[in-house]
Amino acid sequence: MTIRLGDNQYGKAETHVVRVTRGDAGRAQGAPSNEIHEIKDMTVSVALAGDFAAVHLTGDNSKVVPTDTQKNVVFALAAESPVGEVEDFALRIARHFIRDHASVRRARVSIAEQPWTRVHPHAFERSGTEQRLATVTSTRDGEWVVSGLAELTLLKTAGSEFWGYPKDRYTTLPETHDRVLATAVDARWLYARAEVDWAEARAEARRLMIETFATKHSLSLQQTLFAMGEAVLEARPEIAEIRFAMPNKHHFAVDLQPFGLDNRNEVFYASDRPYGLIEGTVTRDDAQHAPQAW
Amino acid sequence: MTIRLGDNQYGKAETHVVRVTRGDAGRAQGAPSNEIHEIKDMTVSVALAGDFAAVHLTGDNSKVVPTDTQKNVVFALAAESPVGEVEDFALRIARHFIRDHASVRRARVSIAEQPWTRVHPHAFERSGTEQRLATVTSTRDGEWVVSGLAELTLLKTAGSEFWGYPKDRYTTLPETHDRVLATAVDARWLYARAEVDWAEARAEARRLMIETFATKHSLSLQQTLFAMGEAVLEARPEIAEIRFAMPNKHHFAVDLQPFGLDNRNEVFYASDRPYGLIEGTVTRDDAQHAPQAW
Amino acid sequence: MTIRLGDNQYGKAETHVVRVTRGDAGRAQGAPSNEIHEIKDMTVSVALAGDFAAVHLTGDNSKVVPTDTQKNVVFALAAESPVGEVEDFALRIARHFIRDHASVRRARVSIAEQPWTRVHPHAFERSGTEQRLATVTSTRDGEWVVSGLAELTLLKTAGSEFWGYPKDRYTTLPETHDRVLATAVDARWLYARAEVDWAEARAEARRLMIETFATKHSLSLQQTLFAMGEAVLEARPEIAEIRFAMPNKHHFAVDLQPFGLDNRNEVFYASDRPYGLIEGTVTRDDAQHAPQAW
Amino acid sequence: MTIRLGDNQYGKAETHVVRVTRGDAGRAQGAPSNEIHEIKDMTVSVALAGDFAAVHLTGDNSKVVPTDTQKNVVFALAAESPVGEVEDFALRIARHFIRDHASVRRARVSIAEQPWTRVHPHAFERSGTEQRLATVTSTRDGEWVVSGLAELTLLKTAGSEFWGYPKDRYTTLPETHDRVLATAVDARWLYARAEVDWAEARAEARRLMIETFATKHSLSLQQTLFAMGEAVLEARPEIAEIRFAMPNKHHFAVDLQPFGLDNRNEVFYASDRPYGLIEGTVTRDDAQHAPQAW
Repeated sequence: MTIRLGDNQYGKAETHVVRVTRGDAGRAQGAPSNEIHEIKDMTVSVALAGDFAAVHLTGDNSKVVPTDTQKNVVFALAAESPVGEVEDFALRIARHFIRDHASVRRARVSIAEQPWTRVHPHAFERSGTEQRLATVTSTRDGEWVVSGLAELTLLKTAGSEFWGYPKDRYTTLPETHDRVLATAVDARWLYARAEVDWAEARAEARRLMIETFATKHSLSLQQTLFAMGEAVLEARPEIAEIRFAMPNKHHFAVDLQPFGLDNRNEVFYASDRPYGLIEGTVTRDDAQHAPQAW
Repeated sequence: MTIRLGDNQYGKAETHVVRVTRGDAGRAQGAPSNEIHEIKDMTVSVALAGDFAAVHLTGDNSKVVPTDTQKNVVFALAAESPVGEVEDFALRIARHFIRDHASVRRARVSIAEQPWTRVHPHAFERSGTEQRLATVTSTRDGEWVVSGLAELTLLKTAGSEFWGYPKDRYTTLPETHDRVLATAVDARWLYARAEVDWAEARAEARRLMIETFATKHSLSLQQTLFAMGEAVLEARPEIAEIRFAMPNKHHFAVDLQPFGLDNRNEVFYASDRPYGLIEGTVTRDDAQHAPQAW
Repeated sequence: MTIRLGDNQYGKAETHVVRVTRGDAGRAQGAPSNEIHEIKDMTVSVALAGDFAAVHLTGDNSKVVPTDTQKNVVFALAAESPVGEVEDFALRIARHFIRDHASVRRARVSIAEQPWTRVHPHAFERSGTEQRLATVTSTRDGEWVVSGLAELTLLKTAGSEFWGYPKDRYTTLPETHDRVLATAVDARWLYARAEVDWAEARAEARRLMIETFATKHSLSLQQTLFAMGEAVLEARPEIAEIRFAMPNKHHFAVDLQPFGLDNRNEVFYASDRPYGLIEGTVTRDDAQHAPQAW
Repeated sequence: MTIRLGDNQYGKAETHVVRVTRGDAGRAQGAPSNEIHEIKDMTVSVALAGDFAAVHLTGDNSKVVPTDTQKNVVFALAAESPVGEVEDFALRIARHFIRDHASVRRARVSIAEQPWTRVHPHAFERSGTEQRLATVTSTRDGEWVVSGLAELTLLKTAGSEFWGYPKDRYTTLPETHDRVLATAVDARWLYARAEVDWAEARAEARRLMIETFATKHSLSLQQTLFAMGEAVLEARPEIAEIRFAMPNKHHFAVDLQPFGLDNRNEVFYASDRPYGLIEGTVTRDDAQHAPQAW
């Protein structure tokens, strides 16, 4: 019996970089400006895998790009050219490590972008809890782009039922033909290639998920999940596969009878825990299987 | 020396109630509907003070309205009539306890409302981390309404300086005439009376705070804070006083010189901790002092 | 009607400093050591009030000690001499600002200490969520020390009842003579003077609160709260007053009858929200009223 | 091109159950007791995979065990017999679904146990942020047990270096022969079989990880990670593989020179973000590969 090193990776997590693009960088400091600034607020995580057995076995760091250096690369690449979409920026960072460091066999860069809404040419209001996500995996043999979003919280007050499930000794839930359905969508989709109009693909995927959630009559959250994925794949040929994790954020109708009142599905108690958790993948028959991308 | 009971209060905190208003409550269950639904998503906290020495000293509960009952009151009052603005609903709940329970001398009801954006006649998307707040304090001698908002996160990329401060042995901060200024506004304002167009007052207070943050040239966050309060008080005579807590969410320009790059105020590191914290009150000379309202 | 500045303060919040005390600081770098190290892990927040109208009204920073400088002071004072107990360190920091800056009329320094348990002469394991707190308020006229603890989570499975409360239209809670009682104690106590054996006073206050919670038969959480405060004040003459905020972390006995089972108070559902919140002060008749200390 | 359902599972997440074991359940309610109670505080998550295409494609719930029923099963099984170790309880729950529901092909049950320390025969204090974890995966062909712990936070003030890494254009980190090393261990280990003395195996694995962290001289966190895993696998033949995720919680020595002070590695700034993240697996050459267990 020999003990050995298995899968491993390391990197700098959650470097929080804010990139401002200002047409007026050359003006006198503090001078008033009416120019429009752009802002990109990103939390960047890098993870490197490769020829790193020595550091684990003997503490030999001669091939270990320090995580501090990785952080510096994030800042420097943010400066060197326009950041673009998070997918573009993640690709540039990942390719840097593959190109510059022979010991690195796989670089995975994950970015969470926090959106802001403009309220003035150079002032912004943070908009929402929703995050735009991108994960790029680069190797010398190929690269994969997974985009996503998290904490897109949706709720509908009609068009949702739940009944027809098996009953056994442990069943107490009453069937319902009219319930509140609420979830916080976590969706990640794999692109079939690495050259895409990222902004348009994201905007359309997002729009289709919201529209389907809102309009598709729901007999279960699973049905809604699949319909959301199907809508995205039907419309966007550049997307190969989409994975969802969707909590069922329960809204229980309050029993008002003890107080002499009817509850005509108008007063709900929003419960934190426990919650249902529905996870599912929607894919294409002809999609390449790419487990290394996730 | 005698040991005695000092100030005390108790209640049910964070009852999460979602109130749906549906014009079509009478239709057949599960039938399709195109009617527009309204949603009000509130977390309600009740705190009662009064004649409660006995329970502390001997465990005599004969005057103690259980916190479970308080929760039930929140649900029942949400059902009995339209909720209206959070200030209206907080007033109804607070008055209930003052009217029905002789032992209660002060009822304080705090509501945090989570806004949602309509995406469909009966579907919604949660909008932002910002919360609408209301705290009502009711006694037999008067009542006070404090409204507020929390987690309104703002950032500006121009029009902010910081210099001219005292230097001593412990000073290392360089002066700047051009910095990123970011904060998460926590604002609470006291109304001079309890009958107000709550929705309009809130919307205008919020709009003025954002506009002032964005447009007022800033030599310090304190100056910005005062200007925001002044703008609100000048425009809204029904508001007597406004209190702010505003973190200075530091965005440090990254030193890119080691990488042979200039940073023309374009690449920032957003730091979590430590952070500046600026707290201040803006008030009127003729405002009644109402410490009991907060 | 004139708009004016009311109460205000500002400072650097949450400077996270870890102070290591090593008897062997002079040894060769990297050399092995068997000496015992001490560690003090503190998050320090400073808030200054005083002659700060100008910065609010005109942005004149000439009296504003930058929050960055405040952070530097925390690090420098941590280096200059042994930190001691958090009360000692908070006193040193607060006095620094009062002594060195004429514009500062009140310095408030709050420290949250994270305890660690030694597992080796120079290795440690973090122990618990509980935090040791100290808040010192210094002025030219006096100084006040409030110590405390937060997130001391306690639970008892016997010796707790709740019955005899008023019933009305909104009451549904059944009375109980045997319930689980759980809370997360937040306690803050004011010392009658600023020279105290802080470590002993804290350890004894903590011990007495836990012992009283565990052994005092409880008819309500209010009764338990008062008994905890009384035990501390009776034993520690240097403590003038103690304030508690104690959530009632509900553990509901699960109804197992639908599954053909009895619940002999053995299976509980621990609910997150809503929760009861009990707040109370225990004080002495002869204690000086010191609202400025809190 | 056909769109189809890929991998999927669903279940009830985070049912928070507290199980009290009381030798004295038959005594009169409210009567005093000196008997020793035991407490088990668990958050249980269930995820089922199997024959669930219909619900995704058409909303047919006829094979869908409701998540509400899953929650009821957790409570009922907690009542029916002693809970034992979390691994035992997870096995019982997982086997229930496999046995009772033909549509379920894989049941995965994850439990996070929150430890409590006894302070009295029937009172407890919550001890630490550390969680005991167990994940059981049951199918008709086999079952796998993964145990673990999370948020075991460790720090050492000596015996840690970091140097000898590659330098390039983006390197600014100075080498060090004496640094503070801190991490929050997340460790998960796979058992080679499903009958083990869970309590002893866990206690020993935990003890060995802490001891190795403390005593092994460290040239990198990767080296420490591997040594921790190696120590566990050498001592516990029932453990087949162990996976770690260990953040490098940076403690930066503060530059005190601007204040005319030396920092002899005594004053550190504990940074929140970014942080290093080291992930690695330690395994045996002869261990069965069991990706389905994780």
